Amino acid sequence: MSIQIGILGYGNLGRGVEAAIKMNSDTELAAVYTRRAPEALTIATEGVPVKSIADLESGNEALDVLIICGGSATDLPTMTPKFAALYNVIDSFDTHANIPVHFANVDAAAKAAGKVGVISCGWDPGMFSLNRLYASAVLPNGNDYTFWGKGVSQGHSDAVRRIDGVLDCRQYTIPVPAALERVRNGENPTLTTREKHTRECFVVAADGADLARIENEIKTMPNYFADYDTTVHFITAEEMARDHSGLPHGGSVLYSGTTSDGTKHVIEYSLKLDSNPEFTGSVLVAYARAAARLNAEGKSGAMTVFDIAPAYLSAKSGEELRAHCL
Amino acid sequence: MSIQIGILGYGNLGRGVEAAIKMNSDTELAAVYTRRAPEALTIATEGVPVKSIADLESGNEALDVLIICGGSATDLPTMTPKFAALYNVIDSFDTHANIPVHFANVDAAAKAAGKVGVISCGWDPGMFSLNRLYASAVLPNGNDYTFWGKGVSQGHSDAVRRIDGVLDCRQYTIPVPAALERVRNGENPTLTTREKHTRECFVVAADGADLARIENEIKTMPNYFADYDTTVHFITAEEMARDHSGLPHGGSVLYSGTTSDGTKHVIEYSLKLDSNPEFTGSVLVAYARAAARLNAEGKSGAMTVFDIAPAYLSAKSGEELRAHCL
Repeated sequence: MSIQIGILGYGNLGRGVEAAIKMNSDTELAAVYTRRAPEALTIATEGVPVKSIADLESGNEALDVLIICGGSATDLPTMTPKFAALYNVIDSFDTHANIPVHFANVDAAAKAAGKVGVISCGWDPGMFSLNRLYASAVLPNGNDYTFWGKGVSQGHSDAVRRIDGVLDCRQYTIPVPAALERVRNGENPTLTTREKHTRECFVVAADGADLARIENEIKTMPNYFADYDTTVHFITAEEMARDHSGLPHGGSVLYSGTTSDGTKHVIEYSLKLDSNPEFTGSVLVAYARAAARLNAEGKSGAMTVFDIAPAYLSAKSGEELRAHCL
Repeated sequence: MSIQIGILGYGNLGRGVEAAIKMNSDTELAAVYTRRAPEALTIATEGVPVKSIADLESGNEALDVLIICGGSATDLPTMTPKFAALYNVIDSFDTHANIPVHFANVDAAAKAAGKVGVISCGWDPGMFSLNRLYASAVLPNGNDYTFWGKGVSQGHSDAVRRIDGVLDCRQYTIPVPAALERVRNGENPTLTTREKHTRECFVVAADGADLARIENEIKTMPNYFADYDTTVHFITAEEMARDHSGLPHGGSVLYSGTTSDGTKHVIEYSLKLDSNPEFTGSVLVAYARAAARLNAEGKSGAMTVFDIAPAYLSAKSGEELRAHCL
């Protein structure tokens, strides 16, 4: 019997999870749940029902794991604890400052219900976090550096779209090559925000809009752009559709540490992703497998990627893993 | 009370473990055990006793974990099961074909004694294995590629030293840049042994030795060199001491996988190590911490890096890890 997975929320991430389930022969999409009218939604997988989020509330849906594909700002803080009281759940909560509260809320709900709730799963937080942990545990005397990109930041793209006269925007976050090089060389540099990343915006403006004003509003926007060197390109809607329709992303976690007498070691983990939501969805599905297994062993409560032994993620047995991956 | 660690064997790796213990404030070197005459051995840490391997046999040494720094060919297959019956143990067993037997032997001994035995720990097997597992679990439709170097292969250096007329050798394994580039580009190439790595030997020959014969014996040596493009340089003993005294190593695990419709993702994990034994020793100490904790929780039996949740490796608490690494 394959692992029955429900997806709550059918945006970019929900579709990424759906694509990932197809790549894993031991997982099966049981249903997609939506806050919209279910009959208005057509999903990519044939023969799988689309249901209302209200159907989840009975706790009687035949799911081994529910993957919650909502936003960290308002959806996940309420949805994940609520559904952790009914199902094993996974989310990709990424509001860093609120992780302790979110973890505690999910832990209380999941423990009371005897369910597993894996929070903050994906690539950052997620695979990048694992690499920060492994590196700092092995080399406690060192520093980690995280670089994001080159890739599309959906939050920054949205922020530009809210500027008057902007019809569309795609914002790329780009690591500064010289900064990356200094870290790779083990120089252990102190780097400012501006020294680590640049930002590049492709903007479709309304006819007759004041381009100089738009460019200035972008470059001086607090938090999002003011601390960065930003380049703005005005393009047509056709160019946007032709050249910027994907959601590539990636980045690197570097760790530079020393052992005796300053002997240096540099660890680098990097991702180059053609589709951010499909890769994030793939991580969520691997952790859904782990959550189902851990719960079957009697485990419950909130967990993160730090708390789960790697073997639980793989469809292969311990013997196969030792023979082929070790 | 800090974690009391014993080191069995005081070669390059034993000294690397000793250096790593100094970097971890929660670990302490309790004793070094040796097959040599203990009084003939001086270790780098002051005030720590050097004892005979025979002292371990009582099972009464005050150790939380014994790190066994022996060779995979003849030492570890007997030593690790033997001492897993008396102490929590860690080794770096790396004879791939014999891992199933070694795992079974250590598992039986450790389970019967209520101890933990972590085998095949270091960077390959070890950190590289973890990256092969995580990548293939997240992207089941893909291929992994492991490149070693640039670094010193002690096994290949030793093989050359056994040639008549060779006084000393340092052999560097070097990844072929074009092969690395093809994998990084997501081309998913099929690569022969010769296409992946080249080998470079620095050799000190005896006075009057036949250099052409030595070079030919190296380049045609089965298993070690015959399948590679090898370069041989003859140098003086002074040049060897001046330019080749370190044991740097490193390498990369690359994984190239696809999700829907051939959407590509490339994952790369790479290490650049000034000292192979000090980094390997650092991994062993992190897993010694994990073994002590797992055993304190009542766990026993053989384990590999696949079976241990990452949080066990770190001296930090779950709260600290979620706040600073997640």
